[in-house]
Amino acid sequence: MGNSFGKMLKVTVFGQSHSTAIGTVIDGLPAGIKLDIDKINAFMQRRISKSSFTTKRVETDNFEILSGLVDNITCGTAICAIIKNNDAKSKDYDKIKDNPRPMHADYSAYCKYQGFNDIRGGGQFSGRMTACVCFAGAVAEQFLEHYGIFAVSHISSIGNLYDDKFCDININKDLTERLKNDSFPVINEKIKEEMLDYIKEIHSKGDSVGGAIETVICGVPVGVGEPIFDSVESKISSAMFGIPAIKGIEFGEGFNSSKILGSQYNDEFYADSNGDIKTKTNRHGGILGGISTGMPIIYNVAVKPTPSIAIPQNTVSLKNKTNEILRIEGRHDSCIVPRAVPSVEAIGLLAIADLLLEHRKDNIVNEFE
Amino acid sequence: MGNSFGKMLKVTVFGQSHSTAIGTVIDGLPAGIKLDIDKINAFMQRRISKSSFTTKRVETDNFEILSGLVDNITCGTAICAIIKNNDAKSKDYDKIKDNPRPMHADYSAYCKYQGFNDIRGGGQFSGRMTACVCFAGAVAEQFLEHYGIFAVSHISSIGNLYDDKFCDININKDLTERLKNDSFPVINEKIKEEMLDYIKEIHSKGDSVGGAIETVICGVPVGVGEPIFDSVESKISSAMFGIPAIKGIEFGEGFNSSKILGSQYNDEFYADSNGDIKTKTNRHGGILGGISTGMPIIYNVAVKPTPSIAIPQNTVSLKNKTNEILRIEGRHDSCIVPRAVPSVEAIGLLAIADLLLEHRKDNIVNEFE
Amino acid sequence: MGNSFGKMLKVTVFGQSHSTAIGTVIDGLPAGIKLDIDKINAFMQRRISKSSFTTKRVETDNFEILSGLVDNITCGTAICAIIKNNDAKSKDYDKIKDNPRPMHADYSAYCKYQGFNDIRGGGQFSGRMTACVCFAGAVAEQFLEHYGIFAVSHISSIGNLYDDKFCDININKDLTERLKNDSFPVINEKIKEEMLDYIKEIHSKGDSVGGAIETVICGVPVGVGEPIFDSVESKISSAMFGIPAIKGIEFGEGFNSSKILGSQYNDEFYADSNGDIKTKTNRHGGILGGISTGMPIIYNVAVKPTPSIAIPQNTVSLKNKTNEILRIEGRHDSCIVPRAVPSVEAIGLLAIADLLLEHRKDNIVNEFE
Amino acid sequence: MGNSFGKMLKVTVFGQSHSTAIGTVIDGLPAGIKLDIDKINAFMQRRISKSSFTTKRVETDNFEILSGLVDNITCGTAICAIIKNNDAKSKDYDKIKDNPRPMHADYSAYCKYQGFNDIRGGGQFSGRMTACVCFAGAVAEQFLEHYGIFAVSHISSIGNLYDDKFCDININKDLTERLKNDSFPVINEKIKEEMLDYIKEIHSKGDSVGGAIETVICGVPVGVGEPIFDSVESKISSAMFGIPAIKGIEFGEGFNSSKILGSQYNDEFYADSNGDIKTKTNRHGGILGGISTGMPIIYNVAVKPTPSIAIPQNTVSLKNKTNEILRIEGRHDSCIVPRAVPSVEAIGLLAIADLLLEHRKDNIVNEFE
Repeated sequence: MGNSFGKMLKVTVFGQSHSTAIGTVIDGLPAGIKLDIDKINAFMQRRISKSSFTTKRVETDNFEILSGLVDNITCGTAICAIIKNNDAKSKDYDKIKDNPRPMHADYSAYCKYQGFNDIRGGGQFSGRMTACVCFAGAVAEQFLEHYGIFAVSHISSIGNLYDDKFCDININKDLTERLKNDSFPVINEKIKEEMLDYIKEIHSKGDSVGGAIETVICGVPVGVGEPIFDSVESKISSAMFGIPAIKGIEFGEGFNSSKILGSQYNDEFYADSNGDIKTKTNRHGGILGGISTGMPIIYNVAVKPTPSIAIPQNTVSLKNKTNEILRIEGRHDSCIVPRAVPSVEAIGLLAIADLLLEHRKDNIVNEFE
Repeated sequence: MGNSFGKMLKVTVFGQSHSTAIGTVIDGLPAGIKLDIDKINAFMQRRISKSSFTTKRVETDNFEILSGLVDNITCGTAICAIIKNNDAKSKDYDKIKDNPRPMHADYSAYCKYQGFNDIRGGGQFSGRMTACVCFAGAVAEQFLEHYGIFAVSHISSIGNLYDDKFCDININKDLTERLKNDSFPVINEKIKEEMLDYIKEIHSKGDSVGGAIETVICGVPVGVGEPIFDSVESKISSAMFGIPAIKGIEFGEGFNSSKILGSQYNDEFYADSNGDIKTKTNRHGGILGGISTGMPIIYNVAVKPTPSIAIPQNTVSLKNKTNEILRIEGRHDSCIVPRAVPSVEAIGLLAIADLLLEHRKDNIVNEFE
Repeated sequence: MGNSFGKMLKVTVFGQSHSTAIGTVIDGLPAGIKLDIDKINAFMQRRISKSSFTTKRVETDNFEILSGLVDNITCGTAICAIIKNNDAKSKDYDKIKDNPRPMHADYSAYCKYQGFNDIRGGGQFSGRMTACVCFAGAVAEQFLEHYGIFAVSHISSIGNLYDDKFCDININKDLTERLKNDSFPVINEKIKEEMLDYIKEIHSKGDSVGGAIETVICGVPVGVGEPIFDSVESKISSAMFGIPAIKGIEFGEGFNSSKILGSQYNDEFYADSNGDIKTKTNRHGGILGGISTGMPIIYNVAVKPTPSIAIPQNTVSLKNKTNEILRIEGRHDSCIVPRAVPSVEAIGLLAIADLLLEHRKDNIVNEFE
Repeated sequence: MGNSFGKMLKVTVFGQSHSTAIGTVIDGLPAGIKLDIDKINAFMQRRISKSSFTTKRVETDNFEILSGLVDNITCGTAICAIIKNNDAKSKDYDKIKDNPRPMHADYSAYCKYQGFNDIRGGGQFSGRMTACVCFAGAVAEQFLEHYGIFAVSHISSIGNLYDDKFCDININKDLTERLKNDSFPVINEKIKEEMLDYIKEIHSKGDSVGGAIETVICGVPVGVGEPIFDSVESKISSAMFGIPAIKGIEFGEGFNSSKILGSQYNDEFYADSNGDIKTKTNRHGGILGGISTGMPIIYNVAVKPTPSIAIPQNTVSLKNKTNEILRIEGRHDSCIVPRAVPSVEAIGLLAIADLLLEHRKDNIVNEFE
């Protein structure tokens, strides 16, 4: 259970790291939406790391769309896309099965699934599953484009190195393009270099490091979101924790809002020359009372350090209930933050698309009489 | 929409600050659970502030249970409890309706509901609605007690004043009792005094301040939670953002995990003398892969400063699309953090109860042969 | 569990026959809908029998709306209405608890709820719970009125006495008004007399009889309904079986369609003088592929005979596992069919309202470009 | 939307008649269930007609399982199986698109999906989609086998030819085996011959005929089902109408119950020599108050005549809004009833499996103290 989310736009993922294929079913998209397959592909390629200090497995993420389209146009029924796991190889997983890796799902999954969970490559807990999320997010992105809604993301921190924040800068087209096309998107170029150097250093020590990813979704009209429990924050956060390694989420100033005064935090309203109502600042992150305010929606998520490190760690033998030393072999990402960027963005796009479809009811009264 | 959450234990809230009553429907509790009404009442009283610098409205939160019990024992159908809004008085809300208060839901709700939203006392966005959440949480608490599961919470920060963290201390019975019975629960007594002084100071200036609340849920067995999208984090966070003023949530070390190295963050497994498998530290907050690990579940939430401040603020006239100055009259909470504590705890209890009911399927295979 | 249904318009009921109150929560209605309370009341009064051969309990079904409205206009949050159970009296239910009544839920509920179910007056299985459904249906009726959608129902059979069928007659305003205002609505007046005589006869023998109720919903536009599993039939049937005593449902010609040939059954399309596309006949009952066709939606439900009869019956002692003779005392409805009419109609109205709200997404593509 | 059903066991289908593939995702099955792939295959083969008077398209329904299993044992995550549409060929569908076939979904789908629906081979409305339902049902069957639960079905009527009913006969192992292995399962062999002759006759005239299918599910323990709106009947009926051509459903005596007296209909309880409580007769079809009674669950569904007939029919041009004559070419099933049998059975199995998983909570109170 737990492989689906969404109410009006329902996304279901399936697969394990080494199953025949992984895939996504997207149900609820209206008929008549033309999809640009190349753009979906481009979105998904952002998940494939290019940098030397990250993953080893050569994933191509070539998806095949099985249903839901006629001539690349949605026909009103569910879209299913699959990605074959060509790279899967049978190797000896017995040791891994008996010695749970710290900070992985090995132990909790072993207990939950009575030892029947698929341990190969992390099974259903593999980061590979985010390819499914990215596919769905890429489809949502094209749907939202018709409304002028788009998302941009950046790596807001690596360790204690912090990028500029979206609420403090002007989000223009140039920046958007630059971040979209960068596999390690950082607003401040100097900080980016420091981050890359830092990861390289950590990598050389066999250690790992986490960071944070901030996304802004622009163009969402005022009135989207269903308070109390289907608020914009509820929808985004609920799905976000489906991405492995996410340990926290905050909206707008988030945790920082708890440190400053009301008089410092409050965003005041004003009417611009067109009579449009806006806030001068956007510390609230585009959401009040769980409903979008028309200002950009901003969230920031914490990504924990990659659990697999080259340094020996203590663990147990599940069979013998004895203490053991674990040495994780092979090479692993020292920092998965850059690879998580499109997934974190995808979740926001999917949540907004879902709520936007529900939002259509809000103006019904204007059609009456 | 948005008034319900939960799958096996479904909670639905209704009401507005000044409607005839507010209430909760709890569906899914098995039959035969005896409820101690006094204990529910005690839980709810924690929401009623005693301190002078907080709310004015004298709420008694006397609930009436309309259904679902026979002799205080669950009979298998939905429990409904209501709280009458005796204190509601009709006053002039026209001005508030036209001049949205910064950081309240006034503007976004006005747009979403085409001006038909209930503006009286904040309507459905009132903090008063959390009384419904507390009632449900108090019921869940008694259900979970049968499993030896309990929750404790404290104010982990006010402004930049930080209490000790649960993952760094020993959670013993004495501490638990003390925190449970304190309307301003802080682990470190010295910090508590500083916090109270600080709030008093902010209050005297007509300003407001936020903070953070940390909850630990002890006794949750390993294997609870449905990855990917119904993970423990997904369930808790999704419902948590139904509480007004929550702007962020983190699990275990949360955002801090993104600042330290894998070698510093990883919790190593060990087998204790009984052969029970545990982690020496609990930076992961009791959840791996979205599934409980048997270690205490820990989350921390950010509470924004009370939006209503005595200081004049800029706003607009919705009718005239002109800029206006807003002066919020009456006295308001300078800090709602203490009053939010039981609600933040209630959400966690409800999410765990929901997932625990679903968890019963996990061991089915052991009954086969 | 099981007290809620609906996706865009979610209805939750609570209460037992002798709990403090029963009630309904309706979530999802857009803001700005003015409700006529008298009309709701009139709808609910149809459930209160006037005929001498039916129930004894003097129910007034005076509801109180607790939330969701401001000046009788929906404000965007959930509507809750309750009906107090003033008539409830404590009497000895021990005997009933031990001797399950044939064809009631006594035995299955006793087992499911481990003996903790509320046996007083049938508990949550009481026909009284349909008052909650009627309240919700009456609200949906007023919402649908804005679209020119309305429902009419009649008693299509009592025992082997059959009324005319909706698909064979002209549904005009006069007929509609007549049926709406009749507590025993039958199209054919002569058959109605025969039905009433028949029930009287059965009543005098201490026996009971069932029948069928047919509803037509006119004005539903083409395109409503979500195939495959949220089809119009799925939505209506799923909720319909929430009404006690319903044992079957069919759409259009229903079971009769299985007895005739394709050439006799098929409804052929034609374009009328305005170019509107219709079918000459309506044996399909307004639904094809799970989607409305623009023709009236027609369904017919089977109502079983009242289980409580004056004739002695065999039963068991649950405690002693021995065979017993049961004599049900007091006076009971010999035929609950007339009282079930508004509930059967209400379910259809609620299902259509729910799907109509979801249907708003279907034309999105026309708004693009 | 509408491609999913189920709460604890969620089934999602995708695909169109001529998409690359069709498929099913099954989420919620506990880990550790061994699946016999040959048995799944055998279940699905029942859907493939052998008789000459039915379909032409040579379907093999060779499924491929993409995920959810390790060595054919469930691993706790979603099972996805796909069936390639090898037989799909591009032909000219323009005419069909403009001239909706009577009693097919062509017109309602055209309107709902703004003309973008997949018309090839009936698109998502094709009977072929029931292969997905059969796959899921075959999996559910193997899960339920562990509880001693099994289902048997027969063709209860073709036109006006009626087979014996399950509630009137002894359901023994021989009968079960015989019906399971018959592609045209009828209890009464003589009636079976008459049915086959009748279909042959209808077929020779280019006409079509419907019928009814009755299923009994044996071994369901007492207490399964969640009243009010998630009753056994609600669950089964809701999903059943996802099968094309189903126009009605009844439980136990169903519509017949509305024709007889309470004294004739009521099933009386008795305690057998083991002290087990049963009913002597089973007119209630194993469900009271929406909850299983421990007696076999019985439902009967109406299947409409195949809409495609060789006889010319009136239709319209959607483009020109003019009246047209439609001649459906090619050869079609004169009677789809036999092919629908495994699907009708599958739905019941899936609904029971879903409710059985939820039922595990009902005895919680016995584990306390």
